[in-house]
Amino acid sequence: MATAYQSAEGETVQPGSNPLPSPYLLFLGDTTEPGYAKTAFGLRDWARDRCVGEYALPNAAVTTGLPRLGFADAVARGARGLVIGVANRGGVIPDAWITALEEALAAGLDIVSGMHSRLAEIPRLAAAANRHGRRLVDVRVPPDGIPVASGRRRTGQRLLTVGTDCALGKKYAALSIARALRVRGHAVTFRATGQTGIMIAGHGMPIDAVVADFVAGAAEMLSPDAPADHLDVIEGQGSLFHPAYAAVSLGLLHGSQPDLFVVCHQPGRREILGHPGCALPTIGDVIEQTTLLGRVTNPAIRCAGVSLNTASLSALDAEAVINDTAQRIGLPVADPIRGGEAFDRLLDACRI
Amino acid sequence: MATAYQSAEGETVQPGSNPLPSPYLLFLGDTTEPGYAKTAFGLRDWARDRCVGEYALPNAAVTTGLPRLGFADAVARGARGLVIGVANRGGVIPDAWITALEEALAAGLDIVSGMHSRLAEIPRLAAAANRHGRRLVDVRVPPDGIPVASGRRRTGQRLLTVGTDCALGKKYAALSIARALRVRGHAVTFRATGQTGIMIAGHGMPIDAVVADFVAGAAEMLSPDAPADHLDVIEGQGSLFHPAYAAVSLGLLHGSQPDLFVVCHQPGRREILGHPGCALPTIGDVIEQTTLLGRVTNPAIRCAGVSLNTASLSALDAEAVINDTAQRIGLPVADPIRGGEAFDRLLDACRI
Repeated sequence: MATAYQSAEGETVQPGSNPLPSPYLLFLGDTTEPGYAKTAFGLRDWARDRCVGEYALPNAAVTTGLPRLGFADAVARGARGLVIGVANRGGVIPDAWITALEEALAAGLDIVSGMHSRLAEIPRLAAAANRHGRRLVDVRVPPDGIPVASGRRRTGQRLLTVGTDCALGKKYAALSIARALRVRGHAVTFRATGQTGIMIAGHGMPIDAVVADFVAGAAEMLSPDAPADHLDVIEGQGSLFHPAYAAVSLGLLHGSQPDLFVVCHQPGRREILGHPGCALPTIGDVIEQTTLLGRVTNPAIRCAGVSLNTASLSALDAEAVINDTAQRIGLPVADPIRGGEAFDRLLDACRI
Repeated sequence: MATAYQSAEGETVQPGSNPLPSPYLLFLGDTTEPGYAKTAFGLRDWARDRCVGEYALPNAAVTTGLPRLGFADAVARGARGLVIGVANRGGVIPDAWITALEEALAAGLDIVSGMHSRLAEIPRLAAAANRHGRRLVDVRVPPDGIPVASGRRRTGQRLLTVGTDCALGKKYAALSIARALRVRGHAVTFRATGQTGIMIAGHGMPIDAVVADFVAGAAEMLSPDAPADHLDVIEGQGSLFHPAYAAVSLGLLHGSQPDLFVVCHQPGRREILGHPGCALPTIGDVIEQTTLLGRVTNPAIRCAGVSLNTASLSALDAEAVINDTAQRIGLPVADPIRGGEAFDRLLDACRI
């Protein structure tokens, strides 16, 4: 590994500081699987005041519950950006979408995408954007000049959400904790690391799109020096035990140098999503590994508690699993979306 | 983390299969610090039959000991590629180098580079290469189409070298083990993951230049299905305990799914190189963490032994530290460069 790059010392650059064109219209394509519409649901739940409605192709079988609008209607209601609110297998935009996206550009909307493939590399879209004087905004393109991580301790406090797997509530946990602590009067910034989080926050770092040598450096950029009582709540990614994405998780952990972390888990999930036969780690495994590896950049790292995603459980079952887990782990456990006293106790633990 | 990419199933693509233009002339620039000339020394040590000599600017204070040649002389002796054999701080090529590189292109040499910055993006070089009909070869550019890792178990055997830090002998250990096992008659392939290794092997995967989401997938591509008794010896990168590069190390570990690993260490090194105050992990720490995290993709992973870089020690001191470490760890320990019975015992352990 070369050591021949300049390291960041006291970076204050705010990545993704280009403002995103909102209010948004949420594009659902022809998606039939709600699991692929995470971005649209995330924006509805966390940036509803900036979403005028949704747009779907005839075959779509997913809805956010927001008004279904045509492009001209959406523009009349103030929309400035069409957000691609769905992922699709392979990350390639199908032709049926492109025709609709061309119409959106013609109607006066910019397009905002969080896919790995870039909008501007689709010739028909590039031509249409150029013709209509509109922007194609790829939030998953990292900023230039990301340095190799320095490992230098930064001022201020940091909390990172980590997980037993992907797609089980790390973003929602971070957003919930940030919002609730802000309500309590604390100085808190939500730090987005994924496309949906970036669209919600309006800024952030698409950490999984950064070249591997610079992942920890990108996490350092994302969460710069801050006043001693300020808390960055950093959106976690993947899992240290994920067969494909653990590299992202570890670089984010080292660069974030969190004082505290919250383990996110979905009760009942037994295998890594999309990897049958690959057993989920236990919450205890994640606490142990995160603490051990996190000490490389913050010797004082510790687990604040556990966030459970109990969306598929009854209120009674959710309470039971929350209480059981708290007793077993010996730390505060809550479902932030359910709130309540359990969440208050978790929030109490989310400050140094 | 999106799960919307195609995963590799039985990839047989050989990345970096474009043959590199050798024999090489080794370019040393105006380097004064031997630590920056790792690539030149690596090629001298492991691909000497493909190196006709070295070229240095007047202020250079580093030498490989190979004949110092002008460009025309080198071409006359059969050289086809000028290899940039030195790293430089910041990864930016200084103007003084560019003038010399233009002369090399004019003399009929292609240029081979392993830096993060791309040769073709330097306008003067691109113009000169075009003018003289020569190639600019960036070995640190990953191939297109790297998939997200599947986690699928592949056939054949794999050994990965891992480290307590960067730059202490993971590549030399892998090359030594691969060469010695081949001499013993085993079917072995050295799998290069860094620029120098790729120039030595003529193929490989520049793993630290891969986008973070795809690092494990790139490692899967590098080491495809093979006959049951074939061994891939995979060059390790960084360290799980490195504040900047651990993401690369973990993605490489998961994607390599090694059956065996060899821990590489330099006795006497106390801090991570370039990170004063950041303590080196112990060999025991590295064995424990590599085993624990490696189980995600290979439940049978185990440590074969330890490779010590004793280049700075006397023969007597080296033997003492090798014996002490072996007694303490309870596994074969050797300096592959010194060889001997200790290395024979380590090789015995490098097969399942």
